[in-house]
Parts: sequence; C-alpha cells; structure tokens
Amino acid sequence: MSTSLPDDVTSAGSATSPREVVALAAHHDGSEVYVPGGTPALGDVVPVRVRVPRLPGGPAAQVRSVWLRTVRDGEPRLSQARLEREDEDESWYVADVLVHNPVTSYRFFLDVPGGYQWLNGRGVFDRDVPDAADFRLTVHPPAPSWMGDGVVYQVFPDRFARSAEADDRPVPDWAQPADWDDEPLAGGPGVGTQYYGGDLRGIEEHLDHLQALGVGTVYLTPVFPGRSNHRYDASTFDHVDPLLGGDEAYASLSRAVHARGMRLLGDLTTNHTGAGHEWFERAHADASSAERDWFYWTPGEPGYVGWLEHASLPKLNYGSPTLGARMIDGPGSVVGRYLGEPFSLDGWRIDVANMTGRYADEDRTLEIARRIRATMTEVNPDSVLVSEHFHDASLDLAGDGWHANMNYSAFTRPVWTWLAPHDSSVPFLGLPVTTPRRGGRSMVETMRDFDAVLPWAVTSRQWNMLGSHDTPRLRSIVGSAEMVEVAATLLLTYPGTPVMFAGDEVGLTGTNGEHARVPMPWGRSERWDSDTFEVYRRLVAMRRASRALREGGLRWLLVDDDAVAYLRETTDERVLVVVARDAWAGARLPRHLLTGTEPERLYGELGLEVTAEGLDLAGDGPGVGVWRIG
Amino acid sequence: MSTSLPDDVTSAGSATSPREVVALAAHHDGSEVYVPGGTPALGDVVPVRVRVPRLPGGPAAQVRSVWLRTVRDGEPRLSQARLEREDEDESWYVADVLVHNPVTSYRFFLDVPGGYQWLNGRGVFDRDVPDAADFRLTVHPPAPSWMGDGVVYQVFPDRFARSAEADDRPVPDWAQPADWDDEPLAGGPGVGTQYYGGDLRGIEEHLDHLQALGVGTVYLTPVFPGRSNHRYDASTFDHVDPLLGGDEAYASLSRAVHARGMRLLGDLTTNHTGAGHEWFERAHADASSAERDWFYWTPGEPGYVGWLEHASLPKLNYGSPTLGARMIDGPGSVVGRYLGEPFSLDGWRIDVANMTGRYADEDRTLEIARRIRATMTEVNPDSVLVSEHFHDASLDLAGDGWHANMNYSAFTRPVWTWLAPHDSSVPFLGLPVTTPRRGGRSMVETMRDFDAVLPWAVTSRQWNMLGSHDTPRLRSIVGSAEMVEVAATLLLTYPGTPVMFAGDEVGLTGTNGEHARVPMPWGRSERWDSDTFEVYRRLVAMRRASRALREGGLRWLLVDDDAVAYLRETTDERVLVVVARDAWAGARLPRHLLTGTEPERLYGELGLEVTAEGLDLAGDGPGVGVWRIG
Repeated sequence: MSTSLPDDVTSAGSATSPREVVALAAHHDGSEVYVPGGTPALGDVVPVRVRVPRLPGGPAAQVRSVWLRTVRDGEPRLSQARLEREDEDESWYVADVLVHNPVTSYRFFLDVPGGYQWLNGRGVFDRDVPDAADFRLTVHPPAPSWMGDGVVYQVFPDRFARSAEADDRPVPDWAQPADWDDEPLAGGPGVGTQYYGGDLRGIEEHLDHLQALGVGTVYLTPVFPGRSNHRYDASTFDHVDPLLGGDEAYASLSRAVHARGMRLLGDLTTNHTGAGHEWFERAHADASSAERDWFYWTPGEPGYVGWLEHASLPKLNYGSPTLGARMIDGPGSVVGRYLGEPFSLDGWRIDVANMTGRYADEDRTLEIARRIRATMTEVNPDSVLVSEHFHDASLDLAGDGWHANMNYSAFTRPVWTWLAPHDSSVPFLGLPVTTPRRGGRSMVETMRDFDAVLPWAVTSRQWNMLGSHDTPRLRSIVGSAEMVEVAATLLLTYPGTPVMFAGDEVGLTGTNGEHARVPMPWGRSERWDSDTFEVYRRLVAMRRASRALREGGLRWLLVDDDAVAYLRETTDERVLVVVARDAWAGARLPRHLLTGTEPERLYGELGLEVTAEGLDLAGDGPGVGVWRIG
Repeated sequence: MSTSLPDDVTSAGSATSPREVVALAAHHDGSEVYVPGGTPALGDVVPVRVRVPRLPGGPAAQVRSVWLRTVRDGEPRLSQARLEREDEDESWYVADVLVHNPVTSYRFFLDVPGGYQWLNGRGVFDRDVPDAADFRLTVHPPAPSWMGDGVVYQVFPDRFARSAEADDRPVPDWAQPADWDDEPLAGGPGVGTQYYGGDLRGIEEHLDHLQALGVGTVYLTPVFPGRSNHRYDASTFDHVDPLLGGDEAYASLSRAVHARGMRLLGDLTTNHTGAGHEWFERAHADASSAERDWFYWTPGEPGYVGWLEHASLPKLNYGSPTLGARMIDGPGSVVGRYLGEPFSLDGWRIDVANMTGRYADEDRTLEIARRIRATMTEVNPDSVLVSEHFHDASLDLAGDGWHANMNYSAFTRPVWTWLAPHDSSVPFLGLPVTTPRRGGRSMVETMRDFDAVLPWAVTSRQWNMLGSHDTPRLRSIVGSAEMVEVAATLLLTYPGTPVMFAGDEVGLTGTNGEHARVPMPWGRSERWDSDTFEVYRRLVAMRRASRALREGGLRWLLVDDDAVAYLRETTDERVLVVVARDAWAGARLPRHLLTGTEPERLYGELGLEVTAEGLDLAGDGPGVGVWRIG
C-alpha cells in the first residue's frame, strides 16, 4: 500500500485488467450519506459515518476498529466509532463530532494489521499526515442550493448580443468599434477598448437560448461604466452603464430573468476602482477630500497603489474608517443596494477577492468577506457570494465569508491538463508554457489536494468551470468537440456548481482570455456547433433530473491514465460516471455497487456489462458513460 | 516521474543497486547556501538560489528555464530566474523575492519537456500543488542560534537528583514518598503523586554530568508549587516550590548553569492553573473578585472549564481585560519576572501552547503568543520561546509568536515508526495501537510534510526529540542500544534543536510518559549504560564541531526502506549522513558530491568507498556513518 498516494484512488495497474475487481477503500465525505443535512450550531453533536467496503483483496476486510479524531480548541481527541451495520459487502461505522469550534475538523483512524491508517479528504494514508486535508464541519451556512441546481451561465455584456437600441448609442471616446463578426484581438493596444456594443436588452432578447440550455443562473461581468470593454475599471458604482442601457435595462433584465425562474448575479470589483472613478478623482485631486483615505498613497509615480502596479486601477484601502459604509456595509452600500429593488440581484461574484484587503502587513480579507456576507444576508438572505481566487484559496474559505470560489485550481486546470493534446499550442493560464498533457492520476490528485482543504459545505458549491472570460476557450484547449464532451461530462457530474462561459455551448474558440471573448454568433450557422449545444443541453438536463449529481457525495472508483470513474451518491440514488480520453484497458467494478436491477444509462456511449462477477467497463474510448446504478 | 511523491526522495528502486548513481533533484531550502543570512525587513529584496544537478539520467539536465513564483497580497507572480553559474555537475539559478508581506511564500517553476514541475518544501511535483508547502521568508527573527548549538537537556525536577537538603524537608500532604530506586508507576492512582523528592540543589550538584555530555541548555519542567510530582498544576506563580529549594535554589542553579556557559529554560503553563491556584481559589470563592473573569464559568459541574475537562486544571480566559498584565504582558508579569534577576531564565517552554487562548468560538492563540514574545523581547532580547504542540502546529508558527515547537510530528513520531521493532508492545503516543514499524519512505515523507509547512527560520530551530516526560523512553520503543545509536545520530544531525530527556543518555527505559520519569540512577552502575552515554557524548561533540550540522541545509539523497542518507551543507562544509536500521542493498552517490580529497569520517562504522564512478555506500547495517565530504 502506498504511503502517500490516496488509496481510494485505485492505481492504474489494478484498474487495467477486467478480471480484477477494483478494490474500494474506506470512504467519507460531507454529503448526506455520511453527515446529516443542515448546518450545525456551536455545541451540536453531529453523527458522522464511514463506509468500509469488505471486498476480498480490499483493505477493509482487515479493519479491526475505527476511531474518530476531532480537533477541539487545537487539541486532537480520539473516540471509538460504533459499528452500525454490516453485510458481506461493507461495514458502516458511526461516531459523534461535537461541534465545539466554528470550524471543527475531523478524520478517521483505521486500526489495521501492520500499523494504522488515516482517512482524510485526500484518501487513506498509512502514515501521519498534517491537518490541512481533515474533514470539516462548519457552523456557517453554505450557499443556497439553487446555485448548483442548474448551470451558471457567464455573460460578458459587450459580446453577448446587441439589441436594436445599441445602434442608436454613440460610440464612447475610449472605444474602437468592431463588427459583430470580427475576431477579438488577442493582445496589444486596443485589446481592452475593442468595442462590440452588446447590451442588456440584447441579453434579455436571448433568454430563450439560456432556457433551452437549462441555465439556472445568469452571471454578468460588470455593468458599471468604465473606459474599457470589460468594465473592471469602474468610474462609478452609482449607476449602470448607459452604453448597456442603464439602470432601467438592468432592472428589466432582472425582471425577465426572474420571470423565467432564473437568478441573476452581479460582478463587483472590491479590490480597486478605475482611475477614472469619481471617488478616486476626488481623492487624487484633493488631499482633504472625504475619499482621500479610501486609497493607498505612495511616494514616486504614480503616487498610489494600483492592482498589479497598474496606475489605471487604484487599490481600495479598507483601513479607512469611512470606505466600508459606502462600499460594503449595509443596505445602502454598493454591495447592498443592487441586491434590493429594482435590480434584485441574487448575489455577487467578487473580482480579485484574493487581494481585496491585502496589502503589505495588512490583511483584512477575511474580515471584508464577512462584512460583505453580513450585508448580503441582511438585504437578501437567499443570496450568494462567490470569490475570484485563481490559486490556493483554502485559508479564505472557512465558510463565514465567501460561500464558494471560482474553482480554477481543483477543477479547471486539472481537467485541462488531462484533456489537452500532446502538442498543445495554447498557453497554460498564468505560466510560461503551453498546456501540458498529464495522466488521470495527476488530474485526480490535484483535484483532491485542492478539494480536501475546504469544508464540504464549500466544496459542494464551488464554481467549477471549463473556462471563463479570463482563459482560453475549452474548445481551443482540448482541440475537438469529442474532448469537449468529455470535459462537459466532468463539469455536469462533479460536485459543486457547474459554470459555463457563454458560447462554450456552441463551440467558440479562443487562445487566451481576451481572444476568447468572442461575440455569440447568432444566426451564423457555420459558426454555431449545434451538436455541442445538444451535448450541454442533455448533460444539464441530466443533472437537473438527478439529486445524486446535484447533491451527492463523491467516491473515486478508479483512476487510469486515460479513464477515470466515480460515484455520486445520495441516500436514494447512486450514479456511476466514467470518462475516457482514449481507449483504455477496461476494469471490473464490484457487483454490489449495482443496487437497482439494471444500470440505467443516463448519458454517453461507453460500454458497461453486468455479469455475475461485477460491472465490466469495456475500456472503449474516447467517450463518456453515466448510469444510474442504484 | 512520480506525480505526488517528492522526487528528490529517491525511490528504493533506484537506490538499491550500487551500479546505478543516485539521481539528484533540484533543491532549495532556507539555509545560507540558498538564502542570504539575516532576517529581512518588509520591502527588502532577497535573492534566492536553486541548485539544479545535471547528472546523466537526472531530471535536471532537461531543465530549460527556472522561474520564481512568489505570492504577493494573495496573488502569485512569476519572474524568470537568472542562470548564475553552471558546470558539468550542476546549474545554479537565482531570483529575487520582494518581501512584500510579513510572511512571503515562494516556490520554483521548472520548465521541462513534457510539462513543468514545481519545487516546494516537499520536493518536486509535476502537477499543480497548493501553497501550504511553499518556501517562506519571514520578517520575524528566528530563535537565537545558541539554542541549537549544543543540546537541550530536559530535567524533570522530582526525578533528577536529591541533594542532602531534601532529606530535611517534610513530605507534603498530597505525596506518596518513593525510594529513589523504585520503578515509577505507569498509571492508576498515585501516578501523579508518587514523590521522589529530587530538588534544584541536586541538579546543581550534577552539572558536571551535563557538561561532559555537551549540554548547551538546561530545560526544567515546572518549578512552581503544585499538588503533584509534575507541578503542571501550579498553586502560585509567585515563587518557586520550597520542596525544590525555593527561589534561592532556583537562582543559585541559574547562576551555576550560566557560570558554565550553559542556558536555563523554564516551563510555564499558560493554558490553565491548578484548581489549588491562589487566583482560582479567590475567583471560585468570590464572584466579585478581581480574578473572577480569568477563568471560564459554565453551568453544571464543576462549574468551570478545565483542561480536557479535568476539574483540577481550570482553564485561563484571556478574554479578561486584566489577566494579561498579571500573566503575560510586561516585565512584571509571570512571563517577564523570571527572565529578570535573580532567575535570569533564557526562555520559556510553553505548556499546552496549542490550546492556550482557544475555546469554542474564541481563538486568541496567535495574539497571546505575540504578546508573550513581546514581553520576552523587552526583558531579554536573547531569550527563546518554544511551544508545546504535539500535532500540526503550522498555523501557529509564522514566526511572530512561538520561535519553535516541540517537534513530535516531524521528527519524534516518524523516527519512532522507522526504528520500532515489528512486535513492539509499546503504545504509540496518543493512539490506541502499539508503535508500528514503517519504511524509510514513510518516515521521510512524514518529516517533509510537517517540515515544509513552516518557514526555514522555524524549521531550523524546531525542538527535535526522541522522547520527553510525556512519552515512552526511546530505548523502550526501539528495543536496543544499537537502534538508540541510529536514532541519536538522526537527532544530532537533523536540522533544528536536538533535545534530550535526562536519562536517555544512560539507557533508561519506560513504556509511557509516567513510567518513563525514571530517577537518574546515579552510582548504580548496573543501570547506567556508559556505552550509550559515549554515543551521545560523541555525537553532541561532533555537532558542536560542525557548522553544517548546526546551521546547514538539508538535502535528501536516498530513501530506502532500511536506510536513508542526506547532506547537511553550509557554504563552507558538506556533511554526509547515512543511517541504516538493517542491512540494505547499498547505493552509489554521485562522485562530485565529494569536494574534499577524501571523506573524513566523523562518526560511525558504515562502509563508504570512493571510486572513480562515485561514493559507494556498502549497504551494511544496522549502523550509522557521518562523513565530512566537502
């Protein structure tokens, strides 16, 4: 048994022979099969369960006892778990976690011959491991479940659709107008000012498309005025950009979205404003102005701190005693105001959340996140708060501030590296190399590493994406519609919130974030991949129809270089997901996993045969298969 | 190349053939070879270096470029490292870290064919990894270097030595007197009150022994009065226990220790007092007393919070506005007073540091650590502050509070599991099993996991132990003097502060913490293992004579089930350490590691032969070998 690899990630070696039954490992996660639903309060006792499979050859048959380890006030405590039930296939143990701290971490100790094992969020280890991957209960409620029910659909307003009204608007002085069919610039001057003139009415006119796709939530990147096509350089937060149709168009879109049972999210840059922002202009011009201490002033040029040293994006200073009331605290703040009538946003995505409130020896990020959340809870208790953090967000995600994060680390990047071709020419986000191609084990270990450091209440709401306005298009990264289907199957079957960038569903391409902001090719059938739309539509519908896919736990069954398989499980449903990037050797899954009569194929074409010995995966590929098996 | 195992931990497979040269991996740590000495200030730019070996078959020959990744205000940045020099054996790259945050983390990006690799504190990974194991620069000064120069020698006052004065003292009412030669109780009633009557004068009378051993620092467990032999249940902090000789004896011991050029550390329980403490008695008797809010009062029995629910040890409440001034803040506090004349302590070991200030939704631990440190810096800037935290202390060790921690996790426990016999009957600390025997890979991965989450400024001062008053004796765990030598060689050659529990050097035994508190067998030659004393004496002397062993970096060369080898390196010295728990297959180390003419054997008997092809390790064992090779 390996000493540092999670052992419920079956090695390629044991998964490649259909004659050998895949051995299952002990398992726990924060889903309802193992932890009662609901958010515990301080002082509650929560029973948590462990599944210990007892297959021949599996480690579980050897487990002599199971213990719970919780950390209380910084000190671990062990208590023996009770054997709750067992049959020939598996044993179930249960133990009680006292929720003594707001975030209470725990893991399991398995007494096995020759030593002992720890079971944490990364898997099973037969040596001591640090606490970072412990399971966690948190007293902070998760994001409302509506966020993950459908799919979140990201719209970049300048590029989604132009209404007829847009033709009547003058081109702003900062903009270089483009034709709707022009290819976006990929870099250089003009990349931020190339202007297609999409507007909010245009979005409203195309809500049929979103509904056909199964969208649950529409997420718009910023709508405040700026001097760029992306509007992350706001010049005011007091009103919506007239170029988009202004406050009225935003309110109208909100009504239309809600009338269709969908939700609407805004995008707020809390880290900085544009240098043209009215606050900054007053602060810059007048050292005695009320807004002066809302920014960081420094010697030399440009005289203030900007986001990544960009003078065009002055950083906000939350050390100011007065900024909070205007920006984040209370119903009248920017955060609060747009949640109320007539805009009625259902939540915010926070731009550059990872840097907000951090500067040199100041670190107010967690405090600011909590204050934003408090404002949102006050104005709309059913709203969601999602952070942008491209990297390791674990220390920012205890659950009391951001509900969830844009999950580049645990989802987007590892999926890309599994599906990129060997000869990719697409730069790998943020790194000076093209996208590498790696094996399934690399993908899964990366996912587990970054997933395991969060409470399940967060993991189960994370924003999983296959791309965004800041990345190359998935289609350009993986190179084919066939691989897009594999990726999309992962997206719609993985725990968390599936998030799409508008246009992915019709096969748009682009080699970097700017180049990928392609206008939607309405009516251009030659650039509209209807097959891919159908893939996404069916996968979204499948997810909507399966509680296990929306709310179930995640159990890895096998990890091969070219194929991975996992279960999504609730108390009343078990779904098997197999995705293969290429032909592989196949594998035999334990027969007892099938608790229905026959597997019900929900999606895909991969082969699965039920025999007396097990569930035989054919090893064909590339392709996907999703079955309800219990 | 493995995807999650540190790749500079050579696998057993490649280390077991003497014909195959051990491949070296890219390396960096916080030692002077890679990072300039001294503590940086905010805003400083610190050049950091990476060593990239270029051996045939090693990965390094393929490195196309090296980049530095630093995290600044929560956002990673990449900058290309400069090739500083190269020869046929290795290339050196250098890059600049801007110390923009008080703790600035960084790692290296290696552009290699087929993908890229990250180099962090755990090794080399060819997938994305979270930030926890990043290298770190901190603006907080490390513990003074004197702490690691010699060895820290832990004395449990009741069990070290009785002076003649002790015979004149009455046995206290709580105590059951024992004869000096009695075996300590291992549990049950009386375990905390079995009383041998050792005293401070007794320690002073045996300082020759300590000096012969090479002790640099004497660390005494508590000397305040209590109602137990361990005195962790203080009844006052105002004076030293008269049963030990009182304030005068403590001051006298301090003078004697200092006169010999040694240091003296105290032991303070900041988490709780005894229920007999004068503060608690007043607080308990009178709800209007000044001390009332220094404790946590709860409904039901016993009416207050105790350490691990023990009513005998009421927990201190630092939410009180007045406790701090009495306990931790300023020269007049308990923390401050004993650092001053006439006691002149050189520092504190803080008992139950991991729980101090933590209770339910309160977490003041970091704040309290910083306040204690501030007091100590004010009274004695050359003093040290060490925490007791048996587990994962990474979030408490940024360097601004505790200087270092008792390193059970990264040292004691993994070493035990490597050297324990297959049939150990000794319970494994805190777990419901006997001590397991695991391979070298398990030991090294555990060490690296727990080491890598700390700044080098902390790692290089951690308290490495092979046992303490809270554990079984090393000799009982590993079962033989031969294995004690292997363990002691690890202790005296590993980065950090070597710490010994008095009596380990003469072969004392004990199967749990209480049973191991054996009185020193002065004059009992049949219970005094002079050979083991000589092992420790020589190893301590070796360490004192080698700057590389005291201050050098740590480069793992090979990890076999039964043998491990590593280098300790400063800019002017290279020491090779090989420890084997059994015979093994041997290995060939790269020839260029030898920069002197011949290896200079510093300790041990293992075989090493220099050939034209490399440094051949014979594969004999059990045993150890330490050589200066450059």
